[in-house]
Amino acid sequence: MHIGTTLRVLGILLMLFSSTMLVPLVIGLIADDHTVEGFLVALSITFFSGLAMWLPARASRHELRIRDGFLITSLFWTVLGLFGALPFAFEDALDLSPTEAIFESISGLTTTGATVITGLDSLPHSILIYRQMLQWLGGIGIIVVAVAVLPMLGIGGMQLYRAEIPGPTKDSKLTPRITETAKALFSVYLALTVVCALCYHLAGMSTFDAIAHAFSTVAIGGFSTHDTSMAWFESNTILLICSVFMCISAMNFGLHYLAWRRRSLRHYLGDSETKFFSSIVLVCIAITCGYLILSGVIAPEDALVHGLFQAISITTTTGFASENFALWPTFLPVMLLMFSFMGGCVGSTGGGIKAMRLMLIFKQGIRELKQLVHPQAVIPLKMGKRRVDAAVVSAVWSFFAVYMFSFITILLLLMGTGMDFITAFSAVAASLNNLGPGLGDVAANYAGISETAKGLLCFAMLLGRLEVFTLLVLFTPMFWRL
Amino acid sequence: MHIGTTLRVLGILLMLFSSTMLVPLVIGLIADDHTVEGFLVALSITFFSGLAMWLPARASRHELRIRDGFLITSLFWTVLGLFGALPFAFEDALDLSPTEAIFESISGLTTTGATVITGLDSLPHSILIYRQMLQWLGGIGIIVVAVAVLPMLGIGGMQLYRAEIPGPTKDSKLTPRITETAKALFSVYLALTVVCALCYHLAGMSTFDAIAHAFSTVAIGGFSTHDTSMAWFESNTILLICSVFMCISAMNFGLHYLAWRRRSLRHYLGDSETKFFSSIVLVCIAITCGYLILSGVIAPEDALVHGLFQAISITTTTGFASENFALWPTFLPVMLLMFSFMGGCVGSTGGGIKAMRLMLIFKQGIRELKQLVHPQAVIPLKMGKRRVDAAVVSAVWSFFAVYMFSFITILLLLMGTGMDFITAFSAVAASLNNLGPGLGDVAANYAGISETAKGLLCFAMLLGRLEVFTLLVLFTPMFWRL
Ligand SMILES: [K+]
Ligand SMILES: [K+]
Repeated sequence: MHIGTTLRVLGILLMLFSSTMLVPLVIGLIADDHTVEGFLVALSITFFSGLAMWLPARASRHELRIRDGFLITSLFWTVLGLFGALPFAFEDALDLSPTEAIFESISGLTTTGATVITGLDSLPHSILIYRQMLQWLGGIGIIVVAVAVLPMLGIGGMQLYRAEIPGPTKDSKLTPRITETAKALFSVYLALTVVCALCYHLAGMSTFDAIAHAFSTVAIGGFSTHDTSMAWFESNTILLICSVFMCISAMNFGLHYLAWRRRSLRHYLGDSETKFFSSIVLVCIAITCGYLILSGVIAPEDALVHGLFQAISITTTTGFASENFALWPTFLPVMLLMFSFMGGCVGSTGGGIKAMRLMLIFKQGIRELKQLVHPQAVIPLKMGKRRVDAAVVSAVWSFFAVYMFSFITILLLLMGTGMDFITAFSAVAASLNNLGPGLGDVAANYAGISETAKGLLCFAMLLGRLEVFTLLVLFTPMFWRL
Repeated sequence: MHIGTTLRVLGILLMLFSSTMLVPLVIGLIADDHTVEGFLVALSITFFSGLAMWLPARASRHELRIRDGFLITSLFWTVLGLFGALPFAFEDALDLSPTEAIFESISGLTTTGATVITGLDSLPHSILIYRQMLQWLGGIGIIVVAVAVLPMLGIGGMQLYRAEIPGPTKDSKLTPRITETAKALFSVYLALTVVCALCYHLAGMSTFDAIAHAFSTVAIGGFSTHDTSMAWFESNTILLICSVFMCISAMNFGLHYLAWRRRSLRHYLGDSETKFFSSIVLVCIAITCGYLILSGVIAPEDALVHGLFQAISITTTTGFASENFALWPTFLPVMLLMFSFMGGCVGSTGGGIKAMRLMLIFKQGIRELKQLVHPQAVIPLKMGKRRVDAAVVSAVWSFFAVYMFSFITILLLLMGTGMDFITAFSAVAASLNNLGPGLGDVAANYAGISETAKGLLCFAMLLGRLEVFTLLVLFTPMFWRL
């Protein structure tokens, strides 16, 4: 472990991160609202903390290795989550406890989108845009980590993607690879955000709302500037635009980068994860719309739009609302929650287990059935035309099992604090899958649950975003030995 | 597929099965109650149906092969489940629909112990003992299948036990192995039942109740002759005796057989599954008692007895009740339900995923964490001193995943019929894990849910009992090809 180098990197990240508070600060200054002081103090604390970490360690230039990757990735979201909470804590109008401020900040950075704030519509623009920016920043962080860092760490079968990373370097050293890849992916991410904002604006959103929602759409975040989320705009066009961009953002950004470089869409069709993901989303849309129409809860024409929108919003783990889906027959929200366990594709801003892993599990199940009927046959597991390595399969299985056990453990801990079953179940699913909205007592927001519960859910959000293993490995003694 | 031989075996099984209706018939004759006619007709139908299958196929003497094993094992529980329903259907006092009669019969034979009957205390003894006998018969069927058949079929990693089967034959042919093994295991099963009945009787149960409850204890069944189950006896001694026998019955009967032959208990201590199982049960008891005492729902001295009893009853998937645990703080019943996913050990009458599989999954998770920290190391997966084969691990993973997907699918189907979340969740867990009691609308019994729901739960009970794959494989086209 190179503590010096880790501190240096963390210090740089914090100083960079503090600059994101400049935008709300400027907006606050223009609007001349009472948030200016809070952002100024938060920015200063964050910047100087970063400086204090960087200064003594600035000479440490050890090459970062695999093991440092776990620590820095975990610290990225936890430390930024803590400092990101400062503006929320300093804003008196929000009246948040320290835990709540941290909850909001981590929910933003992990692109979960669960909120403890009510009365969004009346908040100053500076606070609102800060929440959206947290998600946007978290989103690009996720993509870079997923595409450049996790394959090197070998988390949950991500080593599968080692060879596929875009960018010139195929070095085993982390730093050059991350820098190159980050630049490429950031361009795609930025371009997508700009196009999304333009579409929203053309469809009738104000400039502010268009940018704010483009941030949280592309980040699969789900934060909104209105309590009623996307329903506020009362526009089917906006819902459809949002649906399209949620789907795009839930796909592998490595593929988007290729599409940009090659000016071609053909490789999407050949990608088995994209095909699997699209099929599952289509199945989910079909069931949602079908059940909505048959149950007659809302008019058939509304059922199609809202069914499509909610199915995509929950399956991709975005968590925008076009309707209060907690009022639908319980079957639907629970089913959608189950689909959110899939989440997006690898290398996207989506949460959940990821389509690639579910596909491998599915294929392995089929393979096992075949093996039972033909016990002597040697049946390889393939993805596309490539044979999947046994180590990858085993990593994916472990990921699935550990994910499930984490889910059950946090669920039971929450219920141990006295929370009812449906609230706890949906809250853990919504946090671990980085989805956002829950059911029961957390259907509208997370303000009403206990401080302990909020703390547990913060942990769940981090666990989900860090692909479980990145964080868990830090809790093993062997990680710190040597 | 040898249809002739399959029919012959099934015919013999049915004729043998019909003889179990003799006992309630005789009891009915002695008591001179109105159930005699029903049992006589049911017995005749079952016997002559068996004869009709056996007669034309009696000359078919093909050696049974692996593939026939799947079919016959699946048919054992489905066909016997259907014919076993006849006495319930013919008994007017019960007033059951055909689906309900089948539900009760399958619940008995799969040793689930979920019931659609209320007013047990006022039912004739003949009907009551028939229910208990169904469980007892189902129990020995399970053990024989688990120890002799499943390892040959290679279901969910059971090939691990191929070499460990007691009995003289280590042939690849199914028939001699089953016969030999069945005899050995049946002796152990019978001996355990007799000792259990004696203990119950000495502790104050009537002869009838002692025998009836010994049947359902050793079978991990959970059927009782009283609506209030074990609570009816108001005796802590009985609860403790029951706890001991539930634990014994949830362990591998192959080990019990060895203990008998070697007159030694030492090999239990060396068995890693037994150790894992005992640890989990102890953890569950500790949490249950601790939470009961801290929450102050019942007096501390009661908390210890009932905590111990309920923890063992649910974790082993027996499902006896000493208290209405649905009235405890929701955390406890939900936690116990989660533990029931483990269930018993391989080769026991318990349901669930089985301790061996959970242990392998747990070890594989630890191994994966080690692998992340030491990417270059080759870390073998061991059980005791033996290295576990990759095929076994892969089969266990698939089992776990398919089990979870079956759970979620049936849960959603039930909710699709309009059932609420906690009822559906507990009902599927209780059925798939062959546990019995649920929560919500199925806390007391399963009479109040729809016919569709009852049918789905019958399927879940069979799926759980047939270790998912045995049944699923019959739904694949490739099974019927060739
Ligand atoms: K989200
Ligand atoms: K049971």
